[in-house]
Amino acid sequence: MKDQKAGISEFGLIDIIKRRYQTANKGLIVGIGDDAAVFAVDKTRSGLLTIDTLVDKIHFDLAYTPFEALGHKALAANLSDIAAMGGRPVLAVVSITIPRGLGCKDIAKVYAGMGRLAKKHGVAVCGGDTVAGRELSLTIAVYGEARKNNIGLRSGAKAGDAILVTGTLGSSQAGLEILKSKIKNQKSKIFQKHLWPEPRVKEARLLASKFKLHGMIDISDGLASELHHIARESRVGMIIDQGALPVAEEAVTAANILKKDPLEHCLYGGEEYELLFTLPARQAVEARIILSRAGTTCSIIGQVVKGNGVRMIGSDLKNVKIPDKGYKHF
Amino acid sequence: MKDQKAGISEFGLIDIIKRRYQTANKGLIVGIGDDAAVFAVDKTRSGLLTIDTLVDKIHFDLAYTPFEALGHKALAANLSDIAAMGGRPVLAVVSITIPRGLGCKDIAKVYAGMGRLAKKHGVAVCGGDTVAGRELSLTIAVYGEARKNNIGLRSGAKAGDAILVTGTLGSSQAGLEILKSKIKNQKSKIFQKHLWPEPRVKEARLLASKFKLHGMIDISDGLASELHHIARESRVGMIIDQGALPVAEEAVTAANILKKDPLEHCLYGGEEYELLFTLPARQAVEARIILSRAGTTCSIIGQVVKGNGVRMIGSDLKNVKIPDKGYKHF
Repeated sequence: MKDQKAGISEFGLIDIIKRRYQTANKGLIVGIGDDAAVFAVDKTRSGLLTIDTLVDKIHFDLAYTPFEALGHKALAANLSDIAAMGGRPVLAVVSITIPRGLGCKDIAKVYAGMGRLAKKHGVAVCGGDTVAGRELSLTIAVYGEARKNNIGLRSGAKAGDAILVTGTLGSSQAGLEILKSKIKNQKSKIFQKHLWPEPRVKEARLLASKFKLHGMIDISDGLASELHHIARESRVGMIIDQGALPVAEEAVTAANILKKDPLEHCLYGGEEYELLFTLPARQAVEARIILSRAGTTCSIIGQVVKGNGVRMIGSDLKNVKIPDKGYKHF
Repeated sequence: MKDQKAGISEFGLIDIIKRRYQTANKGLIVGIGDDAAVFAVDKTRSGLLTIDTLVDKIHFDLAYTPFEALGHKALAANLSDIAAMGGRPVLAVVSITIPRGLGCKDIAKVYAGMGRLAKKHGVAVCGGDTVAGRELSLTIAVYGEARKNNIGLRSGAKAGDAILVTGTLGSSQAGLEILKSKIKNQKSKIFQKHLWPEPRVKEARLLASKFKLHGMIDISDGLASELHHIARESRVGMIIDQGALPVAEEAVTAANILKKDPLEHCLYGGEEYELLFTLPARQAVEARIILSRAGTTCSIIGQVVKGNGVRMIGSDLKNVKIPDKGYKHF
């Protein structure tokens, strides 16, 4: 549930929606402003609901996106939203808008890609709506569940927490740029994360089972943008250690080919679907070890401090502001 | 959750999805093939999840659809899907695709229309996704709840049941045709049902609280089409009494203007969002009285019989097949 501007001011629109038109009921726990809506299910569980849309030529391009990858990626984005709350995805419904010229086989491939990922995470995918339109568009809504008192929120970070991120960063954006460029004969590994991102569902469940979750979000619009989300919603500041950033090997390779700085991809590249979270310092080390034992690298990249804004300490020990910009689809 | 063909065979696509790519988990109770997916929440309740998309120029036309009506109608379609299962809608998430040229004020109106209807039914609307695209498209997913052992299903009709329908039929399609025609100066009442349909949430809850639900569906693609859905899924036949059909007054007025047969609008006109349901004969009369006391007319229009297919007895006492056709958006 990311919001992107559409010819009108992004935050202007979201604010209008937030302030004026959100309706609540007694079951609602968290409304607009996090990765998923949270509502009461029973005494021990909360329900989570999220929705995400991918539109042709905006979020993907069929020129380099296989139909299976499209289905995979659309579901991955939603599962990642549920993971970002510390939740377990349960059920997905799908609405697909199909333009003329697209065949049954193509659509079947979209569902095949979705189905494989769903099966891996024990999610039921239950059809939904199929409509005609001028552009291919895929919307998935996922219902998930979390422990009532242990939900990872953007507003949960506390001064003194360590900041952690799973996996490596930069390869999704780097892969996209290689895909868009005319540079050929690249190893498929370089596109892997962009086309087939793996939502960190297992990792989120592990964290939720071992720790009282603090701040948590998934990286859909880029590390910088998500750090700012947490900082703003938690009313804290953040100091990032540039040397601790887990720049992906593929991002470095791609940056060499593209003659760019891999740090740019790492900070501002979108669609990573890694978990960015904060925990008290001692638990952070424990979390890193637990995830690593479960096969997922995890890095401590900085610290939550009192104040506001996001700053980064470089190798020259100078401290610079990280601007609140991220990957935009248009 | 209705499926419509999109240049490829409607049932071909749905069947591929159903058979090959639906995934299940132990919580799933009803997957593809009803108005909403049904899954286990706890010992007494089931969760319901539905998704619906409205696309510009396919499902609505801004030439005659106010933005508020678009928001209202998109949510109404989803609430109607939850009602059709005997459920209570709880939470909605919204994904909107916005083309260039659409202003913030227009989008605010869409949310205003949605918000008013949500408030009326105690539904929390919690933002969701906002993306750019070439055509305006609105997708809403709604989570709802029903009693675990009392869900109205398309497959729930039994031979001997009476067939009932709430409200009147034909005025949505008739209103649409008047809106599309160049005929001006019509009373707004004639467009009311097409632009501002009222989902039968209260009625469905009342029925679920008083009776063990049998067959149930909402009329989104037309009476004939929905009768066939129930007959097929329940493996029964149906006999409809033409004289008992509650043809809307506006449908008759519009039919006179358009020089058409109002029966056509009544049988094949879509987007009525009335409840079509079956109950044992004695309970059917009781249901009609209970709903009528609650302010909603309800008609007994026929009977479920052994066999298959849907037939109608006309004023000449002849018995004709009702074809399985409905309102198609393209």
